[in-house]
Amino acid sequence: MVPRYTRPVMAAIWSPENRYRIWFEIEALACEAMAEYGAVPKDAAKIVREKGDAAMAAFSEADLARIDEIEAETRHDVIAFLTWLAEKVGPESRFVHLGMTSSDILDTCLAVQLTQATDLLLKDLDDVLDALRTRAFEHKHTLTIGRSHGIHAEPTSFGLKLAGHYAEFVRNKERLETARAEIATCAISGAVGTFAHLDPRVESYVAERLGLKPEPVSTQVIPRDRHAAYFCALGVIASGIERLAIEVRHLQRSEVREAEEFFHKGQKGSSAMPHKRNPVLTENLTGLARLVRSAVIPALENVSLWHERDISHSSVERNICPDATIGLDFALARLAGMMSKLLIYPDRMAANIESLGGVVHSGEVLLALARAGLSREDAYRIVQRNAMETWTKLGTPEGRTFRENLAADPEISGRIPAETLDAAMDSRQHLKALDGLYQKVFGESGPAL
Amino acid sequence: MVPRYTRPVMAAIWSPENRYRIWFEIEALACEAMAEYGAVPKDAAKIVREKGDAAMAAFSEADLARIDEIEAETRHDVIAFLTWLAEKVGPESRFVHLGMTSSDILDTCLAVQLTQATDLLLKDLDDVLDALRTRAFEHKHTLTIGRSHGIHAEPTSFGLKLAGHYAEFVRNKERLETARAEIATCAISGAVGTFAHLDPRVESYVAERLGLKPEPVSTQVIPRDRHAAYFCALGVIASGIERLAIEVRHLQRSEVREAEEFFHKGQKGSSAMPHKRNPVLTENLTGLARLVRSAVIPALENVSLWHERDISHSSVERNICPDATIGLDFALARLAGMMSKLLIYPDRMAANIESLGGVVHSGEVLLALARAGLSREDAYRIVQRNAMETWTKLGTPEGRTFRENLAADPEISGRIPAETLDAAMDSRQHLKALDGLYQKVFGESGPAL
Amino acid sequence: MVPRYTRPVMAAIWSPENRYRIWFEIEALACEAMAEYGAVPKDAAKIVREKGDAAMAAFSEADLARIDEIEAETRHDVIAFLTWLAEKVGPESRFVHLGMTSSDILDTCLAVQLTQATDLLLKDLDDVLDALRTRAFEHKHTLTIGRSHGIHAEPTSFGLKLAGHYAEFVRNKERLETARAEIATCAISGAVGTFAHLDPRVESYVAERLGLKPEPVSTQVIPRDRHAAYFCALGVIASGIERLAIEVRHLQRSEVREAEEFFHKGQKGSSAMPHKRNPVLTENLTGLARLVRSAVIPALENVSLWHERDISHSSVERNICPDATIGLDFALARLAGMMSKLLIYPDRMAANIESLGGVVHSGEVLLALARAGLSREDAYRIVQRNAMETWTKLGTPEGRTFRENLAADPEISGRIPAETLDAAMDSRQHLKALDGLYQKVFGESGPAL
Amino acid sequence: MVPRYTRPVMAAIWSPENRYRIWFEIEALACEAMAEYGAVPKDAAKIVREKGDAAMAAFSEADLARIDEIEAETRHDVIAFLTWLAEKVGPESRFVHLGMTSSDILDTCLAVQLTQATDLLLKDLDDVLDALRTRAFEHKHTLTIGRSHGIHAEPTSFGLKLAGHYAEFVRNKERLETARAEIATCAISGAVGTFAHLDPRVESYVAERLGLKPEPVSTQVIPRDRHAAYFCALGVIASGIERLAIEVRHLQRSEVREAEEFFHKGQKGSSAMPHKRNPVLTENLTGLARLVRSAVIPALENVSLWHERDISHSSVERNICPDATIGLDFALARLAGMMSKLLIYPDRMAANIESLGGVVHSGEVLLALARAGLSREDAYRIVQRNAMETWTKLGTPEGRTFRENLAADPEISGRIPAETLDAAMDSRQHLKALDGLYQKVFGESGPAL
Repeated sequence: MVPRYTRPVMAAIWSPENRYRIWFEIEALACEAMAEYGAVPKDAAKIVREKGDAAMAAFSEADLARIDEIEAETRHDVIAFLTWLAEKVGPESRFVHLGMTSSDILDTCLAVQLTQATDLLLKDLDDVLDALRTRAFEHKHTLTIGRSHGIHAEPTSFGLKLAGHYAEFVRNKERLETARAEIATCAISGAVGTFAHLDPRVESYVAERLGLKPEPVSTQVIPRDRHAAYFCALGVIASGIERLAIEVRHLQRSEVREAEEFFHKGQKGSSAMPHKRNPVLTENLTGLARLVRSAVIPALENVSLWHERDISHSSVERNICPDATIGLDFALARLAGMMSKLLIYPDRMAANIESLGGVVHSGEVLLALARAGLSREDAYRIVQRNAMETWTKLGTPEGRTFRENLAADPEISGRIPAETLDAAMDSRQHLKALDGLYQKVFGESGPAL
Repeated sequence: MVPRYTRPVMAAIWSPENRYRIWFEIEALACEAMAEYGAVPKDAAKIVREKGDAAMAAFSEADLARIDEIEAETRHDVIAFLTWLAEKVGPESRFVHLGMTSSDILDTCLAVQLTQATDLLLKDLDDVLDALRTRAFEHKHTLTIGRSHGIHAEPTSFGLKLAGHYAEFVRNKERLETARAEIATCAISGAVGTFAHLDPRVESYVAERLGLKPEPVSTQVIPRDRHAAYFCALGVIASGIERLAIEVRHLQRSEVREAEEFFHKGQKGSSAMPHKRNPVLTENLTGLARLVRSAVIPALENVSLWHERDISHSSVERNICPDATIGLDFALARLAGMMSKLLIYPDRMAANIESLGGVVHSGEVLLALARAGLSREDAYRIVQRNAMETWTKLGTPEGRTFRENLAADPEISGRIPAETLDAAMDSRQHLKALDGLYQKVFGESGPAL
Repeated sequence: MVPRYTRPVMAAIWSPENRYRIWFEIEALACEAMAEYGAVPKDAAKIVREKGDAAMAAFSEADLARIDEIEAETRHDVIAFLTWLAEKVGPESRFVHLGMTSSDILDTCLAVQLTQATDLLLKDLDDVLDALRTRAFEHKHTLTIGRSHGIHAEPTSFGLKLAGHYAEFVRNKERLETARAEIATCAISGAVGTFAHLDPRVESYVAERLGLKPEPVSTQVIPRDRHAAYFCALGVIASGIERLAIEVRHLQRSEVREAEEFFHKGQKGSSAMPHKRNPVLTENLTGLARLVRSAVIPALENVSLWHERDISHSSVERNICPDATIGLDFALARLAGMMSKLLIYPDRMAANIESLGGVVHSGEVLLALARAGLSREDAYRIVQRNAMETWTKLGTPEGRTFRENLAADPEISGRIPAETLDAAMDSRQHLKALDGLYQKVFGESGPAL
Repeated sequence: MVPRYTRPVMAAIWSPENRYRIWFEIEALACEAMAEYGAVPKDAAKIVREKGDAAMAAFSEADLARIDEIEAETRHDVIAFLTWLAEKVGPESRFVHLGMTSSDILDTCLAVQLTQATDLLLKDLDDVLDALRTRAFEHKHTLTIGRSHGIHAEPTSFGLKLAGHYAEFVRNKERLETARAEIATCAISGAVGTFAHLDPRVESYVAERLGLKPEPVSTQVIPRDRHAAYFCALGVIASGIERLAIEVRHLQRSEVREAEEFFHKGQKGSSAMPHKRNPVLTENLTGLARLVRSAVIPALENVSLWHERDISHSSVERNICPDATIGLDFALARLAGMMSKLLIYPDRMAANIESLGGVVHSGEVLLALARAGLSREDAYRIVQRNAMETWTKLGTPEGRTFRENLAADPEISGRIPAETLDAAMDSRQHLKALDGLYQKVFGESGPAL
């Protein structure tokens, strides 16, 4: 992921320093466990821990360079690290990595990094949820036109729109929690995963201390269906970001203008065109969603490793693990900020509801006529006539509102009192189920009408 | 999905008959609920139910043709059905579909169809699990070479291979159960989902009787992140099928011959080439996995509907819902059958383990030398020398096995007794953790060694 | 592809009848070629041709059933066909398929079907191009607002919008022609493609008569990179359909109303809401684009067949070949019809241009001030002040147009004559490059302004 | 793309320095063109060119930092660059970027970068082609078993295998050349692409000097179907890499051992297991192929920009343009090196051909019997009996070769002379078409048999 879309806090998880720190922790814990179960002298394990901790605490650019230097020679990253560690720990280093394979370190480390990344993403989701909740309560009774197919349908509440997105992000959080459990497993099972040279209790010991579960069957590698499911979850979340971003992009269109991304005072590019406030954040989120989703297919293709393992997944993961988590972290943070500061224009929403002359209330008039005893066919005919009259003359000098046309139609005025017509034109009737809906979504019904 | 890969039981779920049956059930239940809450006369609801039930029980090709005829005129499938229903129910049909939208019917019906399809897939998964479990217990102690990168590594158990796939399919079943819960929701919320003309209790009533949960916020449609998550789960399962299929394809290669798909007696195509038993089932499964996965991206792209709804998802779902579930059902059934009948050749497995002269046991010899007090460097040097000697002369007249070379090497024979060397050559040591592993995976440890 | 999105003319290409017709043609041509080069008696080839032609001419449901019956027994589709053919041809059938493999028939037949399908798609593209060209010329000088980021930018021509799509579809046609050449190859090369039992001239003979080129190296199968490239081309075309569909969906939004899909008189669903003309065709096209694109990834995954061939591609192709071509054919036909009948509203376009008070002309005013000698900074300051004044009071009683505000600003009126200001407000200046652009795109400049 | 898979030569194309260099070149050329057509004083254009060239020649880290500093303030990358340029050029900078938009610079620059990247990829493809050609000629007559479904079929030539891959890479080169033409276009058309404030000749002038073609209709942006087609081509090439990589991985399997990736002397990781030479390069290529392909879907999703442009494509391209080209460059270079040094073992190939007792020659025996006058049915029966006898006893003490069994069968020995049987067992007959095939693929037939 390019720096432009990278937050340092997530990038740090994927840094070499963090990786080496986790590698050491796995080796130190495994050594302690072996000491506990008799395979390694307790004193040796203690020295490994103490000298290793000291080396990691003092870890610097020079150490990075030294490890790179060894890797250039050995062409093997884990051996390079272990060699560097041996230089720091001394003779007791012979008790490090006993009976283990590189994959034991690599895959367990990846599990730790992914859980760290996921914890950050879960926090990001909380921020998005907070922003959506706040704005949803703020605009619980803000009327806006509901649109199907991009065409005005019936009024709804802007808060309810946001409640729908909130509910989706609650689901997304649950998906991410499930995905976190998927990848939070530990494998210290040795060559082809048979524990031939390793006590299975070592794995349990390390797993517990790292907050992971032992992998039921690792075949030298942790099975990649777990990672595939993980990236699928990220892909679904990305699509949820896209849906909300597209909603905002629509609302900010020049013809709609019901909402606008917050615009920094000094922000340049449109000094002479004050209306040219472009929804660049949400357009950017649309693109980022595509990027995060692009990890899904390669992750699915990674599942079918040959026999006990091949290494085709490795190059894929070296890229998609940081790229997708960094991209999603950035996108969620941007989304939360955008939603918090979104400029919302209830007046424009109200104006847009009425902009078609009131025909959006025709459904309620139909029901009123039916309640007044008309057959469905007759009711339709009358409503349709007036709606058509309103619609075709909309914006012309002879144009009248739907309400005016209805009042002038004897088939209506003779049957329905004016107050009933007024009530049918009142968008607030579309708010009546909100308390229950808010209760379901947020656990509280929010302000009363 | 072409008929060749379609099982009637799954196809029936996606038939027009089943769809109309569910549509009627939703309408009848909604009508009953409205009667319960006072919006519809109880007698009317009873007539709708009775006459409708009778019509559905007698549903025939003629009814299908009649509905198609109306749809050709109205260009609207739900209206066509309701018109047909009115012809069957009579005047009380005016109480059907009151305040509801087409989406209420369509989306709730899709939820029912997807849960029906999923229940079948869950049963399929059970069959796959049963087959894997049976073969895993049968071959718990069947030794086979573990391969990393396609290269012989250390021995493992063929049962453990299958246990790994079993564990993956257990996860797949959990994923599918989670996915089922994702899509098992009901929406009867009216235009743009505000319940303006509908009592929310109608939705709860219908949902409960259909085994669904009410959708927290439906915006005329059930949000499509649910379906995206569902198809992702199918994609992960498909990849698990592919992994197992590729394992079998590898095992059946002419040079490996450790397993073969069952071959029907009459099966033609290779009458003159008896070895030409092609792994056509697993190759087919590899392709079907690609097909099922191809639903993932369009399902993710479907999430971002505009505002309260657009209908871009519809054409996608009309295809991927049947195609992906039918394809996966067929693939799982084929996989279960293939695994049950798979011909497994333990003798070939044993021969392959030793085919490299025994160098696959070098790891254990190294440990034996270390236990005998040699430094890691010295132990490596000695083992390497003998392994190289074995390897380079493999298959030549001067070739000796690794065991023979070790015995002839004074640096070894002076240090390690013959019995220890024999033990190091014994693949059964790689089976020692199996009881624990089987316990974790299957809940029982299986036959003792 | 479900029948709803299937046109019979494309479906016929993928019918069993057409497949068997092509299979026979390949066998008959190969037999003739072998007769020409001496491997088969000339009389025998003649009998095969004559009796086979007669059998194909009389081909009926009974023949289909007979072939299915044999396949049920032999589990091999090509052998089933050859057995049926032998029943029709008699003893000379022993000269059919000599030295050939099933793949020779299957892959060459697929090439013929794909070229047939492509020729239909090319015709579809011509229809789309015709519709776009006609409307582009019709609306060459119809002014409309150009939008970047969904925000009004500067005026442009509606015809130019369409010219851009036209140019994209010209590219799409070129891509499809290239893709057609990719898959139009023939393989009659026998087992693993070595021509061990076949004269290479047979392949050339068959290829030439089928309008194909001989495949340089077929390894029993035609290499699948060709098909991958083909489906990529379909995917790019699908995306072009989506782009145009989304443009129309935007234009039809209630707030924009610059264009509408043609609405059938009897079309139901919105009788009481006359404005509820939903862009359902273009929404459908958006979904179909996702479906066609879904063939791209499996086609790419099909490339890596093992060694000389495996059959994992087959199940994929049995689905994506008909699905993607049928879906694209339907989509292109729908797109051409939709564009031809699209209702276009120049008055709404003109009104929308001015709906922001004229600030969309600020760029031209800036240039006018610069031409009058002002520094860029000063010009910006003045224009910005007036644009902001216009924008903030837009729609309020004190609101004045940009033109009015400029006239009232002494810093402007003192410097620029009214006619210059009028000219700056004239959207027609944005049409001045159209002749050249049309010339480039259409080869003719179209009507003069 | 992580540094591990990045070659500096490709990374340099995507560096900020190269981007700014191209930006300046576009601005300078546009300024010159405007001078030529009268919109800018010739002297001013000259100063812009000279001072700008000097600034670019002296471009340093300090300049990068300065541009970053301005961008942090203005939040607009092109304005930041232009401001920096103005600091270098002085007052004449007011003639820079006249009537142009940021997109004119950005999209034209991207076209230049992509053509530079493509030229490098084309060179990479030449290296792959050279390696394949060399090895194909070297092994033209190296016999190896052809495998369908992973099962031995009939012998073929190892050179012919490589010739098939060579032919695929020739197609890939053609695809990349076509893709290069797709993206090599220039847009200098101003806001929403109408040339309202720009002479179209400026675009032609700049395009010609940059080796690009003017875009027929740019709507402020170059249409993204071009880029989608480009990334599809990269995806097809990646799949071709994967196919060859998987072939090598298969050949290197312990049971096959027909080829091995070159193994560096010092390369560690398997010191005690000499056979443990893992095909890590080709496994890595398999993963890289997945990565490069992952750009295809987002590129297709980028096509549907809203109206004249939105910026959702930008974040996608900032990542996939460098990632996919860097990844493919690295993969092609690795592939060329791997193929050049691949260790190929003709003896193992020969041994494998005969490892099934010679039944792979049964096809030729069948034909010999047919030529001797037997009916197809009888010939099959006899061959099948002997093949089955050979196959079932393969590897047992009573096992005899297919040739031996045939000789002992009176139905054979009475009909076919021993020499004919010997000839049928001779794999070299499968080489007879090679001269023609090589001629078609390489333009020369190579060494005679």
